[in-house]
This record gives sequence, structure tokens and C-alpha cells, in this order.
Amino acid sequence: MKRDLQIVDVTLRDGSHAMKHAFTEEQVRQVAKGLDQAGIEYLEVTHGDGLGGSSLQYGFSKVNEMKLIEAAAEECSQAKISVLLLPGIGIKEDLEDAVKAGAKMVRVATHVTEADVAKQHIELGRNLGLKTVGFLMMAHMAPIDKVVEQAKLFESYGAEIVYVTDSAGALLPHEVKERVSALKENLSCEIGFHGHNNLSLAMANTMAAIESGATYVDGSLRCLGAGSGNTQTEVMAAVFDRLGYKTGVELYPIMDVANNIVAKFMPRPQEVTGSSLIMGYSGVYSSFLLFTQEAAKKFNVDERDILVELGRMQAVGGQEDLIYEVAREFARSKKVPV
Amino acid sequence: MKRDLQIVDVTLRDGSHAMKHAFTEEQVRQVAKGLDQAGIEYLEVTHGDGLGGSSLQYGFSKVNEMKLIEAAAEECSQAKISVLLLPGIGIKEDLEDAVKAGAKMVRVATHVTEADVAKQHIELGRNLGLKTVGFLMMAHMAPIDKVVEQAKLFESYGAEIVYVTDSAGALLPHEVKERVSALKENLSCEIGFHGHNNLSLAMANTMAAIESGATYVDGSLRCLGAGSGNTQTEVMAAVFDRLGYKTGVELYPIMDVANNIVAKFMPRPQEVTGSSLIMGYSGVYSSFLLFTQEAAKKFNVDERDILVELGRMQAVGGQEDLIYEVAREFARSKKVPV
Repeated sequence: MKRDLQIVDVTLRDGSHAMKHAFTEEQVRQVAKGLDQAGIEYLEVTHGDGLGGSSLQYGFSKVNEMKLIEAAAEECSQAKISVLLLPGIGIKEDLEDAVKAGAKMVRVATHVTEADVAKQHIELGRNLGLKTVGFLMMAHMAPIDKVVEQAKLFESYGAEIVYVTDSAGALLPHEVKERVSALKENLSCEIGFHGHNNLSLAMANTMAAIESGATYVDGSLRCLGAGSGNTQTEVMAAVFDRLGYKTGVELYPIMDVANNIVAKFMPRPQEVTGSSLIMGYSGVYSSFLLFTQEAAKKFNVDERDILVELGRMQAVGGQEDLIYEVAREFARSKKVPV
Repeated sequence: MKRDLQIVDVTLRDGSHAMKHAFTEEQVRQVAKGLDQAGIEYLEVTHGDGLGGSSLQYGFSKVNEMKLIEAAAEECSQAKISVLLLPGIGIKEDLEDAVKAGAKMVRVATHVTEADVAKQHIELGRNLGLKTVGFLMMAHMAPIDKVVEQAKLFESYGAEIVYVTDSAGALLPHEVKERVSALKENLSCEIGFHGHNNLSLAMANTMAAIESGATYVDGSLRCLGAGSGNTQTEVMAAVFDRLGYKTGVELYPIMDVANNIVAKFMPRPQEVTGSSLIMGYSGVYSSFLLFTQEAAKKFNVDERDILVELGRMQAVGGQEDLIYEVAREFARSKKVPV
């Protein structure tokens, strides 16, 4: 069928964060089979932090991701497997292995200002015959013209789709519109949007993206994903049906995978809690949270103050040392005994 | 302070549904105190179905609502207690008792096409010196001109605010805009919006309402409410702060009530599940759900088919008999053995 929109399901990749990277082969097979039968065309299967993410720093996968990719691919009659690759975490050999395991799409992800590190990986994706996507993470952290500049780099390397990725769930709908519209105006490739629900705006932002010209939108079943989780795949199917968009996704079957399979194994519901709300509010990525909570405890300060300050400082991955500096400064200024 | 917006918190009223009407006095005191300290000006305390709702049909309250209203009022230094009244369920004496217990606002609620039954109750509210509100429930079930006509009736009776109430969580943002804009254009009083999250759109709809001129918006802590729950109060505080609206609500204190008090006693998280999604999708009110599930089991048909058909038929409260007729018809047409 001709689809107006592609819902890309990331339950088996972004959901890996919520599962502490402990997906079993059986879980992956059941979800992949259900997604395939419901009409999803692309589903992503990778460690939460992408190919090669299984490590002390990001958390070890319970089952080797290549095995999971292979298992998912075996269950699909029409759907195709996507993999996520963050240059620096994953390497080119990982992508070659993923292709052998059955991957048909690669999404190469960089921080919103660092698309240039992805040139070789995008080119490799194209050379391997994959549908190749550029993924601009933490898209709230750069002004519009920077987002356009970086997206154009992705396109120049050969990306067929460029994503605005709201990793921290920090964007407001008008900010999504501004970004997606600017890409739509300045690029020829297709535009995608990946949202998180930290401000209860994942669905609103997804709709804003579509109204601005995005044709690829990510979702996960029961929102299973980092932070407060993603836009809810089965809810998107319902809303887009009401709005008259053709997605190729059948409502009852996609609900069945969500409620009869994913809901049964997810370790906790994807609510907007104190921590996830503050991450969305401050625009800080979820990888900072655990360190922040430790520092807050050690220095007897409010974790929210630390996160909001890190957001103000535009701290990015790799700057985790800042957390302790900020916590120490708060403790000093409040004369809290350490 | 001058507020751009009023966030009316309904945790202790709409949340009563999610609590099966079993709020204790201590829970009510803690939540009311927290909301008061966080700067909320109006908080609603009543049985989920309004004054007099405690009954076999709607569920008995664990603690008499007058006692809960009194307890909440005692805890508030600046906040005021609102009560909900559905004519037919609550009677005028209930409202008089509520005022003695400390209520300062009444919201008189009718089905979107039946504002005329509320004339005496609105007048009584005004005569008792209450801030008096008209609440048009199931607002998705009437065309715009009908909503305007009914809202005008409320205004003519003396309502100072008229609400568009999306009881089933069925409205899409453009439908909220159409309704609120039309009221704004045709009425002189203030406009409010009450949302439910069955389609993950409570926050999006609340923003659409504000952009269209609404100045009163309802929320509940951790979304505690019927169906998938309401717009999340503490998330609204964060989002409105980001958008530059003055609500008078302090972010950290409101988060503390949500996460340190409400999250501790709520019986289950407010997710978008299979049943709540289908209610939003089909526009059927949550009171139909239990009967529908029973009928689905008895006739061995999919509860979703029944709910979608009831939505198509525009079934309203009181027409519960239809549920069995629809279920029987599905069983017959599918030749399912009963």
C-alpha cells in the first residue's frame, strides 16, 4: 500500500534502555513477529546506545545484539530491521556484521553539532545497500540554522532521511515545527522525527513534525524507551487513523503486541516522574541522571538543581565531570555540610 | 500575583475514579496542603461523579465527601475548594452542605447537549456566593454550533466560566481549537478546558485550548483520573514555565506533592492501555467499560468492536442496555457460539 507516513518502531532499541539491555531472544522474536504482522515496515533492533553499545559504560547486553537482529529478521515476512550506529561507540565492522545478520536500514546518530563524524558511516551504509539515515540527537541544543547546516552535511554524505531527534524530550511543539520546517525547506531528502515524552509532549511533537512535512516518525510500544519513553506506537496508529493518514499499520494487531506482549515484560510503566520531567524541562540527556543522583546524595543538594544547572550550561555527553563540580558549588553556596 | 492561566487541580475529584472512591482523610489532607503550598488556587474535592455520587451505581465513597471537603479546606491557607455537581446525581442540598464544609467554587456539569438541566444549580451557586462554572461534558459529541449554543445557555444562567470537557479523551487538538475558539468568539465569560489522556493528547489539547483563549485548565498530579487520567498538573507547571506563562504554581513544590505523596498511594500508573486507548479512539465514556468487558466475555467477541460500534452510535450514559445488544449482534454476525 501507499503510506502517507512511516511509523518506525524502536521498542527493540530505545526500549533496551528501559529493559537495562536485558531483552531475551524470545521477547525479541515475539515483538518482531507482532510488529511485522501489524504492518510496521521498519523496526529497530540494537543495544540502546547502538551497535557496540554493550559495555561497562553503557551496560552489557544480556544477549548479543547480532543474535537479536538475526532472530528479529527471521520472524519478519515483510518488515525490515533497522540498526542504530553512534560513530565512536559502534564501528564499521559492527555494521557489516549487522548486515550479515539481516539489517536493511542503518541510522547513523551524532550529537546535533557533529554530523561530520558520520561521513564514512553514512557512505558505508549506502555502499552496503542499506536504507541510510542521519540522526541528529539532542536537537534542542542547537539553533535552527545549525540544525539545517548539520542536516545538509548528512544529506551530502548520502543520507536518504534526516531525523530531528529530541533525545531529552525537551522540545516544545513550536520548536519541533521550526526545526522540521527548516529542514523541509532546505533539504531534498525525507525528514524524520524521534520524540521522548518527558514533558508529555511526544505525541504533540510528532503531530507538529508531520504537519511540518516529516514523513518518518518513531514510536515504541507502551512507550518503552529512555526517560519517560517514546511516542506510543499503538496510540499513533489510532490517532493517525482518526486524522486520515495511511500508515499501513493495523490498529488491533499493533495494540495486541503492545498489551499482550510488551506490557507483560516491561519492568515498570513509562510515566513522567520527577527525574524524567526535570530532564525534559532542563534538556539534559538521561545518561546524566544516575551520576547526578549520586552527586546529589553525596553533597546533600537537590538533584533538580544540578540538572537544571547542567541544562543551562548546555552540558553534553562526555562532560559528566561537571556534575560533581556543579553539586559541590551548590553545596558551598547553600552552606550545606558535605 | 497576576496569573496568565489558572491550573485547576482535580486530583482529589477525577482521581477518585482511579482510587475507586477510596480516598482517606489523611491522603486528602496531604494532597490539599501540598497543592496549597505549591500555589494552586483552586482544587476540586468531590466523589468522582460529583456531589452525591457515592452510591451502588457509581461506587461508594470510603469517606463521606463532606468530611473530605472540610479536611481539605482546613489545610489550605490560600487555595479554595471546588466541588463538582452533576444535576440528577447531586441535589441542591448537597451543594448547600458543601458550602458549609468550605467549598468556594462549584462546577455544574451536564452532557454537552443538556445545559438546560443546570439552570437552577448555576443560579444556586451564584446565590451562595460561589465562583460558578458550567462544565460541558463529552464535548466531542456535539458539533461546534451546538457547543456554542449550550455554552451560551450556561452563561445566560450566570456561569462565570464555561468548560469544554473532553471526558472520553477523544478530542484531537484541532477539534479543541475549533471548540474553544468558537466559545471565545461568542461568549463574554472565561473559557476552560478539561482533558483526558486516552490518545496521549491531554497536554497537546490543553496547549491548543490555551492558544485559542482558554484561561482555566484542569490537571491532576501523576495524571490520577478516569480512563488514562488527566493532563499532568506538575508537567503543565513545567511546560507553562518554559512557554513563559505565569500560573502562580511553583515547580519543585508541585512535583513534590505528585511524587512524594500521590505516587505513593496511587493503585496503578496512568498508562494508555488497550481499553483506555479504544475509549479515546471511539469516544465512549469510561463508565461503559466494565459492562462492555462483561458483555465481550459473555458473547465471546472483542470488546474493542463493541466500544467502536457504541462510539459510532453515539451512545450516551443511560444507554448501557445497548452494550448487550451490540455484543449479541457481533456474536450473531460472526457466528460465534454464545
